[in-house]
Amino acid sequence: MTDQHRTSLHELDRFCREAFLAVGADQATADAATRAMLHGTRFGVDSHGVRLLPHYIRALEGGRLNRNPALKTVGGFGAVEVLDADNAQGALGAYRGMERAVALAGQFGLGAVAIRNNSHFGPAGAYALAAAEAGFIGITFCNSDSFVRLHDGASRFHGTNPIAVAVPCAGGDPWFLDMATSSIPYNRVLLYRSLGQELPDAVASDSAGQDVTDPHIVDMLAPLGGAFGFKGAALGGVAEIFSAVLTGMKLSFDILNMDGPDFETPRQMGAFVLALNPEAFLERSAFDAGMRRYVDTLRNSPAREGAKVMAPGDREWDVARGRAESGVVLDPITAQEFAALADRLGIAAVA
Amino acid sequence: MTDQHRTSLHELDRFCREAFLAVGADQATADAATRAMLHGTRFGVDSHGVRLLPHYIRALEGGRLNRNPALKTVGGFGAVEVLDADNAQGALGAYRGMERAVALAGQFGLGAVAIRNNSHFGPAGAYALAAAEAGFIGITFCNSDSFVRLHDGASRFHGTNPIAVAVPCAGGDPWFLDMATSSIPYNRVLLYRSLGQELPDAVASDSAGQDVTDPHIVDMLAPLGGAFGFKGAALGGVAEIFSAVLTGMKLSFDILNMDGPDFETPRQMGAFVLALNPEAFLERSAFDAGMRRYVDTLRNSPAREGAKVMAPGDREWDVARGRAESGVVLDPITAQEFAALADRLGIAAVA
Repeated sequence: MTDQHRTSLHELDRFCREAFLAVGADQATADAATRAMLHGTRFGVDSHGVRLLPHYIRALEGGRLNRNPALKTVGGFGAVEVLDADNAQGALGAYRGMERAVALAGQFGLGAVAIRNNSHFGPAGAYALAAAEAGFIGITFCNSDSFVRLHDGASRFHGTNPIAVAVPCAGGDPWFLDMATSSIPYNRVLLYRSLGQELPDAVASDSAGQDVTDPHIVDMLAPLGGAFGFKGAALGGVAEIFSAVLTGMKLSFDILNMDGPDFETPRQMGAFVLALNPEAFLERSAFDAGMRRYVDTLRNSPAREGAKVMAPGDREWDVARGRAESGVVLDPITAQEFAALADRLGIAAVA
Repeated sequence: MTDQHRTSLHELDRFCREAFLAVGADQATADAATRAMLHGTRFGVDSHGVRLLPHYIRALEGGRLNRNPALKTVGGFGAVEVLDADNAQGALGAYRGMERAVALAGQFGLGAVAIRNNSHFGPAGAYALAAAEAGFIGITFCNSDSFVRLHDGASRFHGTNPIAVAVPCAGGDPWFLDMATSSIPYNRVLLYRSLGQELPDAVASDSAGQDVTDPHIVDMLAPLGGAFGFKGAALGGVAEIFSAVLTGMKLSFDILNMDGPDFETPRQMGAFVLALNPEAFLERSAFDAGMRRYVDTLRNSPAREGAKVMAPGDREWDVARGRAESGVVLDPITAQEFAALADRLGIAAVA
């Protein structure tokens, strides 16, 4: 990467919105999809950042994603709602779902929304963080096309099935976890291939499920935990059960390939969001003081030599501050795809 | 272990109940504590099984635990309740909390209970499973005295902070996860010491937080995930925030030592339970069919050579069936302590 493709978050936000609107996506889709991708890019999770724009444009043009979806509540009971996203771009369904979960949590202390007929939603943490920014604890689960073997398994079974949790922390950034339940993301394999490096032990397998470190023969990812991969596989299962079984949507191994060739058929993916109102449990001041003491003690706790102890999200907040100030360098492939999109859609190129 | 100390689950149940009643614990305490320990012993989680009986007896006699606690709801809002366990033996608070969470989930689709002034509750899975046996999804979080370092940390910070999830599965055993967020439990270190074996890599550290495999110099456990221990540490943090911050109870590093010497002072531990009613999200028949297909596909999926793929809980259900049939062999120390308890409390020894 060179500084040739350095730009600002603001300019990327502008470009993404204009691209969505140029292919006929409605304003709500442009807003939600852009917000989620900018979350990824802002926090340094570039795999789930603006590099996804050409993918989403293709899925909107192909018909997999609905350019003018009519999201509606189709079921529920008490503090639970079922939201049909009408094959919206996934961020729209997920943000809308979390808005409803937060509203339910305001009314009932906690609230859950099962989202049906959604699609790839990018960074799971974006929706958990939306709850934390409103003063609530947010949890997001999703499944995705299968890349990850089971413990002792020899087939792609779960997706990288993320779990995200965000907790408001008065006077500071939210405590913020956004983790794949695999050891590593698949794009790490691709990166190591291009760098010609060996992978760490016990993170990826060949087609027989045997651990390999040569990224060129990797066929599937290992669940989190190495020798204790039964824990990572089970956590992937939690995300699967909540996002696919409770929504009646596709299990990971049934989801159509994200990368096509079919860009017409909706992928019938589910997602699950949960919000909790801390004030239903204790006084806000007591909650705030408890979180403060927890994260302050954590950040100041002894580190092993040469290392530093960080709270979940600290690294991401640091990146976000840096990128807000200095901008972002687009990777060459994304820069090239953005230039082609600008030409084709008749919008101003990224400056 | 020899067959000298083989006995039945039924006889252990009888012995535990009589021991609790003999020291003046009320019937509810005897029932709940026995049920939880028998859960551990039945499923082969012997660290959280009947071997805990002498510990609980000591804590009841010392005054740390209340022999006649008056549990009561002291707060809440909507689908949330706050239960004060009045320093009950921890299983009583946790079972009572999950009963309330299930009732709330019946009324609101989901329900959460923050349990205050509880104590060591043994196997987290016992309470999640209680929800699944009632047809609900159950989740349990707890923290505990600190034994586990942070990622790159060099002090005992979190407890082994378990996360348990149980999901009903029509026509079969519940899907059932009960995991410590550390790589291994501390009693595994003790076992390897007594066996004179080296520990696996990256599961435990010396007092400087450096990984060691010699069990004799282990000072703390590593979080789940090895090189990706930031994920395990964050999951431990989820359990910590829900069970300690949301309840206003002690953080792991503030909890008095489980093993004393103080057996008088209540430990002010929190716990958190959540129940969800699948029928609030979709038809029971659709949920049942979805879970069936998920676990059936999982169990029949290709395994790597020489291995077998299992669903979370399968190993435990197998042990439970074996022990129901053939009984259990008590370890020599527990057998000896039980004999001494029988003498001292004037109850019939384990037959």
